[in-house]
Amino acid sequence: MARFQSFDDAASPAQGPERIARLRAELVRRGLHGFVVPRSDEHQSEYVPKNAERLSWLTGFTGSAGTAIVLQDKAALVVDGRYTQQAEAQVETSVIAPVQQAKTSVEDWIAANLPAGTALAYDPWLHTSEGLKRLEAAVDRAGGRLMPVDINLIDVIWIDRPPAPQAPVRPHPISHAGETIEAKLDRIRERLKKDKLDALVVSDPHNLAWTFNLRGGDVGHTPLPLGYALIPAEGQPSLYLDPAKVTNQAGAAVGGLADFAEPSAFAPALDALGGRGAKVRIDSGTGAVALARRIEAAGGKPDMGADPISLMKAVKNSTEIEGSKAAHRRDAVAVARFLAWFDREAPSGRLTEIDAAEALEAFRIETGALRDVSFPSISAAGPNAALPHYRVTRSTNRRIEANGIYLIDSGAQYEDGTTDITRTLVVGEPTAEMRDRNTRVLKGHIAIARAVFPKGTTGAQIDSFARRPLWEAGLDFDHGTGHGIGSYLSVHEGPQRIAKTGHTTLKAGMMLSNEPGFYKAGAYGIRIENLVLVEPRQIDGGDREMLGFETLTLAPIDLRLIEPTLLDAAETAWLDAYHAWVRETLSPGLDTHTRAWLEAATRPLG
Amino acid sequence: MARFQSFDDAASPAQGPERIARLRAELVRRGLHGFVVPRSDEHQSEYVPKNAERLSWLTGFTGSAGTAIVLQDKAALVVDGRYTQQAEAQVETSVIAPVQQAKTSVEDWIAANLPAGTALAYDPWLHTSEGLKRLEAAVDRAGGRLMPVDINLIDVIWIDRPPAPQAPVRPHPISHAGETIEAKLDRIRERLKKDKLDALVVSDPHNLAWTFNLRGGDVGHTPLPLGYALIPAEGQPSLYLDPAKVTNQAGAAVGGLADFAEPSAFAPALDALGGRGAKVRIDSGTGAVALARRIEAAGGKPDMGADPISLMKAVKNSTEIEGSKAAHRRDAVAVARFLAWFDREAPSGRLTEIDAAEALEAFRIETGALRDVSFPSISAAGPNAALPHYRVTRSTNRRIEANGIYLIDSGAQYEDGTTDITRTLVVGEPTAEMRDRNTRVLKGHIAIARAVFPKGTTGAQIDSFARRPLWEAGLDFDHGTGHGIGSYLSVHEGPQRIAKTGHTTLKAGMMLSNEPGFYKAGAYGIRIENLVLVEPRQIDGGDREMLGFETLTLAPIDLRLIEPTLLDAAETAWLDAYHAWVRETLSPGLDTHTRAWLEAATRPLG
Repeated sequence: MARFQSFDDAASPAQGPERIARLRAELVRRGLHGFVVPRSDEHQSEYVPKNAERLSWLTGFTGSAGTAIVLQDKAALVVDGRYTQQAEAQVETSVIAPVQQAKTSVEDWIAANLPAGTALAYDPWLHTSEGLKRLEAAVDRAGGRLMPVDINLIDVIWIDRPPAPQAPVRPHPISHAGETIEAKLDRIRERLKKDKLDALVVSDPHNLAWTFNLRGGDVGHTPLPLGYALIPAEGQPSLYLDPAKVTNQAGAAVGGLADFAEPSAFAPALDALGGRGAKVRIDSGTGAVALARRIEAAGGKPDMGADPISLMKAVKNSTEIEGSKAAHRRDAVAVARFLAWFDREAPSGRLTEIDAAEALEAFRIETGALRDVSFPSISAAGPNAALPHYRVTRSTNRRIEANGIYLIDSGAQYEDGTTDITRTLVVGEPTAEMRDRNTRVLKGHIAIARAVFPKGTTGAQIDSFARRPLWEAGLDFDHGTGHGIGSYLSVHEGPQRIAKTGHTTLKAGMMLSNEPGFYKAGAYGIRIENLVLVEPRQIDGGDREMLGFETLTLAPIDLRLIEPTLLDAAETAWLDAYHAWVRETLSPGLDTHTRAWLEAATRPLG
Repeated sequence: MARFQSFDDAASPAQGPERIARLRAELVRRGLHGFVVPRSDEHQSEYVPKNAERLSWLTGFTGSAGTAIVLQDKAALVVDGRYTQQAEAQVETSVIAPVQQAKTSVEDWIAANLPAGTALAYDPWLHTSEGLKRLEAAVDRAGGRLMPVDINLIDVIWIDRPPAPQAPVRPHPISHAGETIEAKLDRIRERLKKDKLDALVVSDPHNLAWTFNLRGGDVGHTPLPLGYALIPAEGQPSLYLDPAKVTNQAGAAVGGLADFAEPSAFAPALDALGGRGAKVRIDSGTGAVALARRIEAAGGKPDMGADPISLMKAVKNSTEIEGSKAAHRRDAVAVARFLAWFDREAPSGRLTEIDAAEALEAFRIETGALRDVSFPSISAAGPNAALPHYRVTRSTNRRIEANGIYLIDSGAQYEDGTTDITRTLVVGEPTAEMRDRNTRVLKGHIAIARAVFPKGTTGAQIDSFARRPLWEAGLDFDHGTGHGIGSYLSVHEGPQRIAKTGHTTLKAGMMLSNEPGFYKAGAYGIRIENLVLVEPRQIDGGDREMLGFETLTLAPIDLRLIEPTLLDAAETAWLDAYHAWVRETLSPGLDTHTRAWLEAATRPLG
């Protein structure tokens, strides 16, 4: 039994029709023709609390991204390519039609279906300014009107809606955070002054958690408290967190550095800021359009842009880096035990995807330090591994068969660091094609691991290094090569990325994943993921300040899936050195069986 | 004596003070405090006609980019890093202060120096909408006003201003163009309709030349006629070209497909379009703000965006591709003769940069087909080669010394194609460092030449392939890896680029340069440039549509500057195959001496 993840199929199509009918009745009562129901919550979070699961409550769809548009006479659920099949299975398609985003965007669907002269309603707390501009353009094309609602219409009709989460808010000790609240606030205020801003709305709870060295548990897998903060360039910041969840320790740790206030005091505080004519930075990625409206209506100047905290949080300090390394060493013991167990058990042919995910979680729990998994494990056998965002449920659960590939992408939340690792394993004999593809993915992984690049380089500039070995074979993968990662925070953290869209400059101290892959639909999938740390590199004879990556994750890469003749000497040397480091670091702390397994799993190729 | 390029130092600092004083008197007369003088002409062209050389007439500065701001009490010339030294040398610095753009932008200088309450004037035909927004923000910061002028103030005071150029406009025959005017207009109109646009302003003369299969000679090195065109989604296009320069052949070739009109009829035509409420696309890169203003004032809707012709023009048809290949074979004979001559003559130590540039031009003239050089040659010895945009003049002309590097970046305009090639040569013995750096540049060049990538890939995604071998040594180069190139048009053509900023998708038929480099300030510079053609690639076992490059340029790469142990087997194989192709293609058409030289210069390494 997994403690931190569920494999149940949540929601069911049956509930949709009645709830949609109730929503339509509410629309009629208000003289509205339709309502937009995004998956996002007030903070545009990846994981949302139960009381913000409006989309799944209404439609039955439980994917992590999607938008429903319910009109009087028709309704659509627009989802991206990851969720096409899932949407078909989870919703009552006779009442709400699943629509593929790549073919018809939310905006295109609205433009084509909203009758001219009618009003489409939306909740201004669930859309960013950018998102709203797109909705406006769509409604314009339809000849309709866009109408904000004061209270979300789903909340009006959702009888048993759960209360807002109230997980305790606790301090994140300086021994893990590495920088005091005071020092962080000084840096933020300095930045606000430099940018001639009077205040910052912290709409991203990750940034609130980082700034005030607080952690919570309001959403799954990310230890943060939901709430807002206001940080003026001069004077005392305010934290809008339900007092019922703020522990005494958290209050004491923040001390006199910020005021705690009721969440209900947040909107009036925006009005007050606006009333003073303040220029207020609102994060364009996570800030709801309601924030800007409120400030503007009161006479202030909303300034849409990046919350400067995001970039500060992305660059880890030495305490966070040491914490992450300790977390990785700890996690690696659990992962090594799991991999050894897998090699022992999988040949029986009896293991399922859920068995494996539960086993890995159990090994992590045995570290004694696991706070949560950092996301539900992607435990995928055979063709399921070809779905990069697969999540196993009781109904999709496959047996792990011989001569096939098994992929597990998982991570842990420890108080000193967050981990994220993917390994691709073979049971029995791989085909020559599998070895070829896996080796190309590995070559791409090594190209990132070994990359050196000048200060000022973005993730976009190095992303193709991970793809080149696949491109040479006429292949590619359809996701980014790497995402940022938090320090006992979100497993997906911006703004840095290694991806076509990664336009943030990489800086020493940033942490990212390095995870190229290959997916053969209906057959198998491959991904090799380690976390890496950006670090300065001194190169003799060079004339530029250079950066490179230090790999943080410790786990063998399956040698049975490597075709050694495809590796050049430098790549083989990297792999052997990596495996030697893994062996030397982990062996002393392992049981005899796992140590023997590790010895074999990390034997040199060269 | 070169026919197509001059090595004279044009302009002189002495003329500046008196002309600036005259401009100030004119400003006083009009109640204005200052005037902005950009280098650009009405079309934002790279090469501008003599009558648009306002910046050099006013200040003495002849660089290809820069902006003067003349106020009553002070004046500045803002230039980028390429032109810092040149600006210092060419202008009377006691009257107009050279300013480095990287330190102080035009906008920052205006914000800091324009007195509050005063008016800064500008010519709306010389600024794009984007550029004007930046100027407006700067003037706002200063508390001043921005005022358009009806006639450029330089034109008012420039007594002997040359007339507008009137080079004959001739048809570009279908045997070179490969697509009829009619077919091109059909594609453009279809695109306008798809984008719900009523008309297109063709503000870029390259796009006018391409669409109407016309060529001219109004500016240096690019065979285009200056002028505008209007293309409505329905109905007859109009060409606004001085009738005195339109030849009968051009008139006959365009036939009934477009009307010819006086340039003076252009502005009224914009008014008429606006008066009909038309939605008119204006190219945001080359369209003057005056265009949008005029259309808007008359009641129309200017739509700023990309001129769709740019992307059509970038994808060469099979006739243009065959023409380019013929042009490259022809040019290669001249280049091979030059390189053989250089190796024979340079060891004497008597050759200068100008001698070499003249010799290469002479060999090109001897092809019998040269219409112009495609840009003034960068003929650079020793430390001059460390300046990527160096242009030799009588005062900078260096002797080509033994044991040093000589770099020549040059190109030709033939009616069937435009060329652009850079070779880096050594006289005597290179140092080990020179060989190392040159080999790394070559490795980058080969990485681009051999790149295969999926359809949909941008130039930005592959740019770093050219840099990786330098990055590994702590080095880099500070320019893009490649630019697009025209078909008997501009040597620099967009929108495709291989550069950090190259966000245009590469398509089969596009032509680009492949020109990584390395520059050691005060010592030497290296660049290896071939032109390449994007072509489809079929890869067995692949699952994606792939693209790659076919190299078009034929000339030996100096083996004396290569450290063979730094090349891997695939790189050596590429170089040997390239050299074999050069040798086999060129040898039959060469004189005995050059053929023998080529044999040695292309000997295999492997």
